[in-house]
Amino acid sequence: MENRKKMIKTRTRNRTPSHSDYMSEAFSEAFSGFRNNLGGPFGAVIVKDGKIIGKGCNMVVSQNDPTAHAEMVAIRQASKNINSYDLSGSVIYSTCEPCPMCFSAVYWANIKEVIFSLSRYDAEQMGFKDNHIYNEISIDHAERNIRFIKVDHPAVKDLIEEWSLKTDKFLY
Amino acid sequence: MENRKKMIKTRTRNRTPSHSDYMSEAFSEAFSGFRNNLGGPFGAVIVKDGKIIGKGCNMVVSQNDPTAHAEMVAIRQASKNINSYDLSGSVIYSTCEPCPMCFSAVYWANIKEVIFSLSRYDAEQMGFKDNHIYNEISIDHAERNIRFIKVDHPAVKDLIEEWSLKTDKFLY
Repeated sequence: MENRKKMIKTRTRNRTPSHSDYMSEAFSEAFSGFRNNLGGPFGAVIVKDGKIIGKGCNMVVSQNDPTAHAEMVAIRQASKNINSYDLSGSVIYSTCEPCPMCFSAVYWANIKEVIFSLSRYDAEQMGFKDNHIYNEISIDHAERNIRFIKVDHPAVKDLIEEWSLKTDKFLY
Repeated sequence: MENRKKMIKTRTRNRTPSHSDYMSEAFSEAFSGFRNNLGGPFGAVIVKDGKIIGKGCNMVVSQNDPTAHAEMVAIRQASKNINSYDLSGSVIYSTCEPCPMCFSAVYWANIKEVIFSLSRYDAEQMGFKDNHIYNEISIDHAERNIRFIKVDHPAVKDLIEEWSLKTDKFLY
């Protein structure tokens, strides 16, 4: 991997980095992450205006955080770096097709484009349930493996009303 | 909301808390979160073996973190508290149906049950794009509002091979 990193540096010295260069950087993250037992074999890089503003690898195991997927780590780092929850204009390079969690985080962050190499089916072959979650998300509550139960609560009406009347609210 | 919290304490002094009590706690999180301009009007509580092990409100705006939804904050706190990325046996109470990001985080965390009150359509009425993301997730890459592009990369084969041969890997 060190050789690959050196190659990127050399090759990009006199030109604008390409999709492939950023993807190589994402793969570097993935390799170093799982070789160091930080988590699964996934990496991601976020680029805005030609600059890397966030990157990361999967850290679920080492951080004891089920949400610490590579894309999430990179999004959180990028948001911190530019001091905004809005990453409009950014592109994310991910070694693998984002799982539904990371897919949605991309939407919430207003990222404009997702470039990826491995698919959810490759992830499945490697032992991960991305594809299972994609399947679960599209079926009715009653058919899911995890129970989803909608209950009424007296605070619902108050919450909707107070939020609708709030004059200084931020929508994101 | 102070009155509501006091009511819960009084009511639960001599009995096991009910679904409704935990949901009240989630609503308390939601109200205090948006009243203090931490983020959107959402709260969540995670319960395992009758104990609250994590809770939180939406903090997207105050933390400049697009991933800081109430359920994510609660999951990350619970994982930290029990020192594991595996929340098997837990129930999450969320004031609103989880968006696809939080939905998937629930699956990654092995939470067994989701109890919620508002729906994705209520969230839409309040100005949030949960329902839009649910719609986007189920359609083909080419039809989405955000571009998803699958590219080949020379590292794919190495990564799959090295991961499959790794003997000390954790699957989660």
